[in-house]
Amino acid sequence: MAKDMTLMWFSGSPPCWRVMIALEEKNLQGYNQKLLSFEKGEHKSQEVLDINPRGQLPAFKHGNIILNESYAACLYLEEQFKSQGTRLIPVGAAEQALTYQRMFEGVTFTEKMANVIYYEWKFPEGERHDSALKRHREALTTELKLWEGYLEKLGAGSYLAGYNFSLADVLVFPCIAYVFRFGLSAKNYPRLAEYYGLLKERPSVKASWPKNWLESPQGQDKLKDV
Amino acid sequence: MAKDMTLMWFSGSPPCWRVMIALEEKNLQGYNQKLLSFEKGEHKSQEVLDINPRGQLPAFKHGNIILNESYAACLYLEEQFKSQGTRLIPVGAAEQALTYQRMFEGVTFTEKMANVIYYEWKFPEGERHDSALKRHREALTTELKLWEGYLEKLGAGSYLAGYNFSLADVLVFPCIAYVFRFGLSAKNYPRLAEYYGLLKERPSVKASWPKNWLESPQGQDKLKDV
Repeated sequence: MAKDMTLMWFSGSPPCWRVMIALEEKNLQGYNQKLLSFEKGEHKSQEVLDINPRGQLPAFKHGNIILNESYAACLYLEEQFKSQGTRLIPVGAAEQALTYQRMFEGVTFTEKMANVIYYEWKFPEGERHDSALKRHREALTTELKLWEGYLEKLGAGSYLAGYNFSLADVLVFPCIAYVFRFGLSAKNYPRLAEYYGLLKERPSVKASWPKNWLESPQGQDKLKDV
Repeated sequence: MAKDMTLMWFSGSPPCWRVMIALEEKNLQGYNQKLLSFEKGEHKSQEVLDINPRGQLPAFKHGNIILNESYAACLYLEEQFKSQGTRLIPVGAAEQALTYQRMFEGVTFTEKMANVIYYEWKFPEGERHDSALKRHREALTTELKLWEGYLEKLGAGSYLAGYNFSLADVLVFPCIAYVFRFGLSAKNYPRLAEYYGLLKERPSVKASWPKNWLESPQGQDKLKDV
């Protein structure tokens, strides 16, 4: 039980979801949760700003210790609870290196995904250009093909950094789920779709599945031609 | 000695510099180095693509193990050579959490810095807007004030995550050096300037100081009013 931990989160936000999966994998259920609304701007409330001056979620506390960056929180949980639950960073040099490598390629994946999905949100109308959006969509396609190739090379049933579930999956899977939620074609990306199907059944992922996705199973089709 | 390691790098690139500082701190001098030219597009050569399909630097090899993301390479070096050289991730929970937290806020810092410094490089002429650049400059100012405040709170002579040099410094210092290289005002950011002065004298930083900065000590003034 993790009664000394508190997580403030948005439903469906990949960074928040990462921390929730890590908590599940480390057997840290029972933490205090506060689900906030992005639409109502609750991440800019004083309660959040007191923990995270950036006014962003996740905002996570373990006792008096504060971690607001999803990667930071997940690394911390793995390091502080190393022998509890799933071992998320392999010990062997080669496996460890691949785990770290994919974790940080995940930052690029997140950025390229955000450039397309949040394009209208990031740029006011007068600053938008079809040429820019086209370039961002092409960059996302290239990125997705790279990950498709990684999985292809590892073979059926693999995780992102090899035969074992790792911190790379904790950190990158929410983005992969997100692109499918936004209509990515399983036909165009069969390995990513297979991986998505595998992870969907994992207990930590099921336990933390976004509430709003359960309520409205129908996503968007923004990425259907990517 | 680290004869089984090879680093391909650009001079002055913050991601490359991170790996070089980490190698110095872990007493891994003597690695093979290959300095490439960004201007000549040498990062798109087959030699780089064989290691890094993204065609980016750093590209780093330890034996047959490949790490191309700077954060990944630094975490790997710390983990694999934990008891060698400087301990870069503190053991205590609070210090460790702050180290991770600042490391990943560094990703945001890097992004906000790049949005201003590389603006013309990132967007073709027809897609540029004064309003966008103004917004990016304001976001960078807010970001820099946040880091100035962190250092102010920790007190004179502090590192980014407290009283000891850590992986947060390895990863974020190159960006702080970069903003001063691009003309940031020491008067407007006295704590950052003090920190910059402190780190400049650190042996690992001196040993890895960008060659092209030594050759042309005069930087640019793009950030002088930020």
